[in-house]
Amino acid sequence: MKQIAKIAISVGVAVLLTTPLMASKKVKWKLAETWPSTLTPLASPPAKVAAMVKQMSGGKFIIKVEGKEKHKAPLGILDMVKGGQYQMGHSGSYYWKGKDINTIWFTTVPFGMTMKEQYAWFYYADENHDGKPDGMEYMKKVYKKFKVLNFPGGNTGVQMGGWFRKQINSLSDLKGLKMRIPGLAGEVMAKLGVNVTNIPAGELYTSLDRGTIDALEWVGPGMDIKMGFHKVAPYYYTGWHEPASEMQFLVNKRAFKKLPKAYKAMLITAMKAASADMYYENFAESVDAWDKMKKEYPNIKVKSFPTPVVKAMKKATNEVMEKYASKNKLFKEIYENQQAYMKKARAWSKMGEYNYIKTCDKVK
Amino acid sequence: MKQIAKIAISVGVAVLLTTPLMASKKVKWKLAETWPSTLTPLASPPAKVAAMVKQMSGGKFIIKVEGKEKHKAPLGILDMVKGGQYQMGHSGSYYWKGKDINTIWFTTVPFGMTMKEQYAWFYYADENHDGKPDGMEYMKKVYKKFKVLNFPGGNTGVQMGGWFRKQINSLSDLKGLKMRIPGLAGEVMAKLGVNVTNIPAGELYTSLDRGTIDALEWVGPGMDIKMGFHKVAPYYYTGWHEPASEMQFLVNKRAFKKLPKAYKAMLITAMKAASADMYYENFAESVDAWDKMKKEYPNIKVKSFPTPVVKAMKKATNEVMEKYASKNKLFKEIYENQQAYMKKARAWSKMGEYNYIKTCDKVK
Repeated sequence: MKQIAKIAISVGVAVLLTTPLMASKKVKWKLAETWPSTLTPLASPPAKVAAMVKQMSGGKFIIKVEGKEKHKAPLGILDMVKGGQYQMGHSGSYYWKGKDINTIWFTTVPFGMTMKEQYAWFYYADENHDGKPDGMEYMKKVYKKFKVLNFPGGNTGVQMGGWFRKQINSLSDLKGLKMRIPGLAGEVMAKLGVNVTNIPAGELYTSLDRGTIDALEWVGPGMDIKMGFHKVAPYYYTGWHEPASEMQFLVNKRAFKKLPKAYKAMLITAMKAASADMYYENFAESVDAWDKMKKEYPNIKVKSFPTPVVKAMKKATNEVMEKYASKNKLFKEIYENQQAYMKKARAWSKMGEYNYIKTCDKVK
Repeated sequence: MKQIAKIAISVGVAVLLTTPLMASKKVKWKLAETWPSTLTPLASPPAKVAAMVKQMSGGKFIIKVEGKEKHKAPLGILDMVKGGQYQMGHSGSYYWKGKDINTIWFTTVPFGMTMKEQYAWFYYADENHDGKPDGMEYMKKVYKKFKVLNFPGGNTGVQMGGWFRKQINSLSDLKGLKMRIPGLAGEVMAKLGVNVTNIPAGELYTSLDRGTIDALEWVGPGMDIKMGFHKVAPYYYTGWHEPASEMQFLVNKRAFKKLPKAYKAMLITAMKAASADMYYENFAESVDAWDKMKKEYPNIKVKSFPTPVVKAMKKATNEVMEKYASKNKLFKEIYENQQAYMKKARAWSKMGEYNYIKTCDKVK
């Protein structure tokens, strides 16, 4: 460095002295995502992070994004990032619940927090009174053993309860109903007598159309419209089971450590910006999709489950959560932490936006 | 450049060839904000942007943030950024409504959009069918003549309707009521017979305590608790007049043009990340503040205005908006664009998060 500085001075190019060589190191990373690389809004955060860090680094820090059409291992992201085949991944934390049930806390749980409640929990809640934000602290704790760093990666907001061929008027309408609904929500529905089935995405439309299944849940209007479910099942139920599904960025710990400090900051800033943006994009796509759906299919009926059904779902959810809590100490701790924060947070959620929408409805 | 390259090769320091000299230029900017530099969450976005760009540029791009305690001109930000005394500012767009009424569209309007509806409008709505997002397009159009660039700068979410010494049971309770409520909402309240007064922030608590005024609006629990209003006025009304107050970043156009491309990208990415974060921070501060307030002052009553009052507010709001629309063609255009988008967006807002909270309430 000294020699370079001297030469620089000798030719009168003082600017060289202020050039941070480390920060202009060429870095080429690969990112594997669970989704096809063109599937908005899920594929948007990785694409945007790659574009942002490229621009911010003057083309020196390159992240090559590979969709599932390329790597063919949509549910292998955690393993591939842990193993270092990919330096980064973009997926959903709850896909790893088979490896560790506590990964679910960073996606969403039935009757859990809304987007803003969850982001407040990630970054600002401090029920533990240790000066650190509870959500991010637990995220680090859970992912430590996988040797990957984990960051919020975009939120879908409240997902719809699903498309049903027939109206659900009572608990007895759920008995024997064949429904595609994965994860914890599937466990809950099974407790209510639902025949929970697992069908590949590509076969869902036909299965619903032919009555092989009676119902399914997917995401919300923006993503559902691409699947066409509204053409074959007229009842669209409001949500209860995925109130704020968060995607995740995974980063290989060794790769991250090797990054120049400036690139670390670029990556973190870009992930935060791109995550926020996915929420706006998904909301906007759902606005347009719902407007289109109801114009083209005016027979679609938006329904909320009747109170006795919701009560049974909540009871079953509590049982499922308590089953895991009794077997796993950390699960119990995070569950109690989230429930305590959610109780406080929901009070304000209701006073704020919820009441505002109610007020607007008084003058429709 | 050619000469540097040759020298570099001659001393065998090939890395110099790949060093983007432009991107490591030292840049020192100053940012003036409307708020005291310690006032969270409003002062957080500028502080975070400054920290982020410093890290991302390896300490080369420095933004010195000056609060109102330093520059003493909280409402002079637009002029100071336009004039180049400061390269950047952080404020609220509606403070410039005296210069151009169309600046209000980038903060909030009574009975307007919620945060997610507004961000969808900023970045994704395309009611104009020109392939460009409506909100950002109008923002550029309105701010062009000021020679500053304008960017979303953090959102407060729904603000509360204010603190009242007495309960509002009917429209007649508003007649002659002395209230501090600025902006368009003040114009609306004046139409309902409210005696709208303007009192400096430092005197508000004493004025409310002594009954010099009967009511006031500020922000929401997080910021209100610092003012102490809950100690002297027991009725806390839910919001209608500022459903999604957006802060703004102002950037002097000439200064922005001179930035290396990489720094432009850093600035834009950091502003987006910091804006999103303010929403989470403000939400979290309100969660904690409201929890504290109601524990310490259990007599606080949360109220919503009765339907006849809300109807009168909405009618008066329509009249105020139509008054401006009749005088200003662009106002009319943006008003119609926003109303059209909001109508679509609200349908989804209600199906999604609003209905979810309602569902959760069935099993409380």
